[in-house]
Formats: sequence, structure tokens, C-alpha cells
Amino acid sequence: MRELRVTLPGNAPERESPIVIGDGILKESVSYLRDVCPSRRVAVISDDKVWSLYGDVLDNVLRECGIDFISVVVPEGEKSKSLGCLESLYNEFCRFRLRRNDGVMAFGGGVIGDLAGFAAATYMRGVSFIQIPTTLMAQVDSSVGGKVAVNLPQGKNLVGSFYQPGLVIADTSLLGTLDKRDWDSGMAEVVKYAALGNERLREIFGSAQWTRNHSRVQWSHVQLEEIIYLSCASKAALVMEDERDTGVRALLNFGHTFAHALEKFYGFGHYRHGEAVARGMLLAAKVGCRLGVSEPGTFAALERMLENAGIDRRVTKNVEENVMDFLPWVCGDKKNLSEDISLVLLKRMGEPLVRRVRYEEICGVFD
Amino acid sequence: MRELRVTLPGNAPERESPIVIGDGILKESVSYLRDVCPSRRVAVISDDKVWSLYGDVLDNVLRECGIDFISVVVPEGEKSKSLGCLESLYNEFCRFRLRRNDGVMAFGGGVIGDLAGFAAATYMRGVSFIQIPTTLMAQVDSSVGGKVAVNLPQGKNLVGSFYQPGLVIADTSLLGTLDKRDWDSGMAEVVKYAALGNERLREIFGSAQWTRNHSRVQWSHVQLEEIIYLSCASKAALVMEDERDTGVRALLNFGHTFAHALEKFYGFGHYRHGEAVARGMLLAAKVGCRLGVSEPGTFAALERMLENAGIDRRVTKNVEENVMDFLPWVCGDKKNLSEDISLVLLKRMGEPLVRRVRYEEICGVFD
Repeated sequence: MRELRVTLPGNAPERESPIVIGDGILKESVSYLRDVCPSRRVAVISDDKVWSLYGDVLDNVLRECGIDFISVVVPEGEKSKSLGCLESLYNEFCRFRLRRNDGVMAFGGGVIGDLAGFAAATYMRGVSFIQIPTTLMAQVDSSVGGKVAVNLPQGKNLVGSFYQPGLVIADTSLLGTLDKRDWDSGMAEVVKYAALGNERLREIFGSAQWTRNHSRVQWSHVQLEEIIYLSCASKAALVMEDERDTGVRALLNFGHTFAHALEKFYGFGHYRHGEAVARGMLLAAKVGCRLGVSEPGTFAALERMLENAGIDRRVTKNVEENVMDFLPWVCGDKKNLSEDISLVLLKRMGEPLVRRVRYEEICGVFD
Repeated sequence: MRELRVTLPGNAPERESPIVIGDGILKESVSYLRDVCPSRRVAVISDDKVWSLYGDVLDNVLRECGIDFISVVVPEGEKSKSLGCLESLYNEFCRFRLRRNDGVMAFGGGVIGDLAGFAAATYMRGVSFIQIPTTLMAQVDSSVGGKVAVNLPQGKNLVGSFYQPGLVIADTSLLGTLDKRDWDSGMAEVVKYAALGNERLREIFGSAQWTRNHSRVQWSHVQLEEIIYLSCASKAALVMEDERDTGVRALLNFGHTFAHALEKFYGFGHYRHGEAVARGMLLAAKVGCRLGVSEPGTFAALERMLENAGIDRRVTKNVEENVMDFLPWVCGDKKNLSEDISLVLLKRMGEPLVRRVRYEEICGVFD
């Protein structure tokens, strides 16, 4: 079991959040609850898919540890990140008589983390928030940074807060049931942290043992634990420097400008988020090379790393397909084609930079 | 015109909020918008009562200053502090294409400040928030401290955040249409700051010129400006020390434990909030005297100060009326009669302290 401590500026005592990572650690790590939520009363939020797989496991652990809890299970998927669903959580909190020193526990992937986190941030102006992410994406990325939100019909994440979890428990034994696409989606974010500068991750992906077989069964729990730890540490370092997303945190958007455009063009759900990010990173690397920002070989190095990470080649091939069609979406709502865009480019692997680029410049690259 | 700067801990640049106070200062102070909301685009939130009285005034000022804005007018009263109303604000923000660097402006009393503030805190994870309070209560109290919220059917302020306004404009010329009860309600909070320690406020209320005539027309704009300034400064000092309400900020609850019990017993709306606070302060002073915490004469000194502040004697007389009936409500939801209660008591005028008191002790005082 590894432990990472994220300390954020601010005066509230709950703002140092431990992230504990390991295989089958659920039970032992629940003891951390004592610091985050001394009342030992929590409302668990989950989705029906996760709950049917692991509800019993969590239920037993909480019972054995003498935690007083309710579970609120919402339908799986993005639709649950709504104001309506949020209101139903508030109602359950009231029914359970959740108080200011009790907690909210997210048990699921990114959707559940965002929804439960926003409910925790706003119920009684903020109660303790505990995250038990059940997807690789949520373990390496969504649980760090404190961005929580719900969607409006007009757009994703339009209503939200910055709210740090007091405790994150990343139990790799919960990842066994992930399908290959969800797995690759999380792994793409890990590659992002390698590309942004984490040397040890680059070493791991560069070592020969990973190049031979791309199936995820190759990763042992010990290796996974290290990968998750390194990714969280990379993200946490950037977030600690820039909690409210006004500076260096922008580097985390590597690949995301194109990813969002792809997701809007093809419709959310066509690509898994991480799949879109993998393609987006390759497109950004291409822009960097063609604009002369990147050293020669940077694109190829990124491509190789995605391959070594075991990501399905169908995700990363033909990245320029339809690019001229979805390119207008890189300018947000397509209304600002005349404005500059901030793009994260790579000088070389491990050395990102932010560059203002005109829309026509990007068009020129792919035309 | 006076200016007070509230600086709160945290790394975001918008967290230093100026409070500008004066008579007819709306137009000149809108220039402060440049710092808080450089895009000069705002969504104004108001209620139908305030908008019918002062909508034209604000509309003209914003037009003359070249501000791009929409106004969203909700029904007057506590009912508008709902999730449904909040959702309609989000929809208007989307329609106006409110962006992350635009702002939300509250133009009204406490209800509007709470509702618009929570919308500002959560739309796109937080946009600039500007407050133009139009009641004495909101000018001296609600606009300082950053507590924003909406109600649930299950209780008041159950959903909210801590979110500091980037700018507060307290224009005393907007107070001319307040009725006497709303006026007294605000003035009761001013007396609270005197009781909690503001010496200059005690001087003002102690001086002979205020003892002769209790009508509010006696207060000149210059005097009002000073009273509002001193109250905001008192509250700001406590809030700056304890933004997230875990320590000294508790002193601000002087009179509020009884006030909340009164409001619940008689139903919200029977007393104006400040009227209940006036009675609550007197009850707390009585408890302090009878438990031997207060110096002799403290109750009488507080009573005299409320009178000198011009507060209607009907508000402050017979404070022990029905006290045994509503006393159970001082324990929150009446379910915790066995738990201790934190009460703010006065050692003497200007010297508050927090004391844990058992419910039976309080009963003993009034029995």
C-alpha cells in the first residue's frame, strides 16, 4: 500500500487529503475515515453497475468497521450528472439526517465522483468528501484536483465547484471487471503524465517487458500501484501549484482541446474520454512537429508510448481522419474562430509548453 | 464615500473584496467593476419589488457605464431561494452566454444575495460576484462573510457555499423605501456588532442625540455611512480570522440561537430576522446574568442600546413571553435535548464569550 498526501492552500483543516493506493486495501484504509469524518456517518453514492458488482464488498467493509451509512444508487452513466439527480441526493441526505460533521462517499467512476463531490461541496456548505474510485481513469485522474460538477442540458460541467476530497482510496482490486476500452481510456491519461514530465512513467512504458504484449493482464497489482501513484503525484503537483485553474494547471489539458472537439463532433459516448485524449495528444504532437515547436521524433515517441502502454491500435490509428470536420470545435462553441487558442504542445517528450495558436494555423497544419 | 477592503486567505486574486459605502454612489462605484469583472458583462439578479423601485436607476447606470448585461427578476421573498429558481438562473446565464470571466450581480436584499451568490459560486465553478444590497440588513450583514445558499423544503440554507463577493456597493440612497420593521431588523444586527465589541458603535448609540427620537429619519446619510462601515468592519474582522466558520466566527451567532428557535416556533415570516435577533440577544443577556456570567447591568445596557438605536419597543418588550414553548427549538431539530448548546453570552457590553450550556440550565433560567 502506498500513500500520497495532497496539501492545498487554504485554512480548513480537512484540506490535506491522503490518497491511499493498493490491492484489496478497502478494509484497512477505511480506518483513515477517523481523521476525515470523525462522526463515522456517511452517505455512499454509487451507480447501479458498480453497486451490483461491488456493493456487497463495500457494504460488508463498512458494517465491519462500524460505520453508520446509507447507500444511494443512481443509474449508471452521464445522465445522472444532472440537477435532478443532485436534488434527489440532497433529499436522501435530509432523510438520513446527514449533519455537518458527517461525510459523503463516492463509490464509482468519474460521473459518481463529480456528482457526489458536488453534493458534498454544497450540502450544508460542505461536508467531508471521501472518494473510492472504481475505474482506472478515476483512480489516476478524476479523484485528484477537486473539480466536481453536474451538467446542464446546455453543456457539460456547467455547474460545479472546486472541492478537495478528504480521502481517496484507490483499490486496484476493483479494476478487475473493467472492459478493455475503459482500461485503455484510463491508461491514456497515464501516458499524458509521462508525456508531461514524469520520468519514471516514461521508464516504465519504455522498458522492453511492456512492448511485447499489450494485454492489460500483464500489469501486476504492484506495477499498477506504482503507475497510479505516479499519475496522482504528477497531477497533484500541478494542482497544488494552481488549485483554481488559472496557470500551470493548464498543462493538464494536453490532448484535451482536440479531445473535446472530437467528443463534440462524434457525440459524447462515441469515444471514451481517454480514447479521445489519446487521439488528441497525437494531434497536438503533430501540430507541434509541423509548427517547428517539437524536436524531430516527438510524434513517433508519443505514438510508441501509447502502444507500449497497451492501448489498442484502433484507438490511435488514422488520427487525422475527419480532422478538418471537427476542427471548428477546438474553438469552444465554434463562434470564436477568429480568437487564439491555447494549445499544450510538446517541445520533446516530458517537456510541455503552452502556446497561443491561431485557428488558421491549425487548419494549415492539417490541410 | 468610504471603502473597506476585506482580504481572505486563499490564492485566487479575486479574493480581496472592496466594500464601498455612501449616498448615491452607484454610478461612481460601478467603475470598480473593471477590477472584478474586466469583461464588463454581468447578469443582474433582482426581485420584482426592488426592480420596480430601482430597476430603472440601475439600468441607466449600467447603460451609461457601457456594461453589457441582462436582468433576471425573480418573485420577492424567501420562496425564490429554491433549487428551481436556481435552475432558471443557470438557464438565463446560458442564454446570455455568460462566460467564466463575466460576472453575476445581486441587486436586492439577503434572499437575492444568497441566491445570486450561490449561482455565481457554482456556475462554471465560479464567476465574479458583485453585490448591491438594497436593505439595511444586507448592507450591514448579509453582504459580508461569503455565506451563500438556497433552501430545501426540509430546511433553510441546506445547500450552499462559502463564496466571497469581489465587490460590494452599499448605496444608502437605496434604503429610503424600507419600511420601519425592515429598518429595525437591520439596526438590530448593528447593535449586535456594538455588543460584540465595536466601541465606536457603542459611542454612537450611547450619545444623547439618539436617545430623544427613535424615528429613523434622524439618521443622516453621513451617520448611516459610518454605521454601515463599522458593522461591516466588525463582521469582516471576525470572518477574516475564520472564513469557514469553525472558530471565532461563532461570536456572530450572538442572539441567533434564540432567534432561530423563535423563528421556527412562530413560523418564518412572523418576525423579521433582525427582530428575532433583537429578542434573542436580550434572552442571551438574561441567561448570562442569571448564570452569573455577566456583570450586573449588562441586560439593562443592551436593552437601552436597542432603544437608543431606535428599534420599536414592541420588538423588544416581554422577551420572556412563551419562552418555555419555543425553548426546545434551541437544540436544533428538537431531537437533541440531551446535548450541550454553544451559547454566545456577554461578560459585559463589548465582551462576548462562548459557553457550552446544558438545555436544562437554560430551562432553569426561565422556569
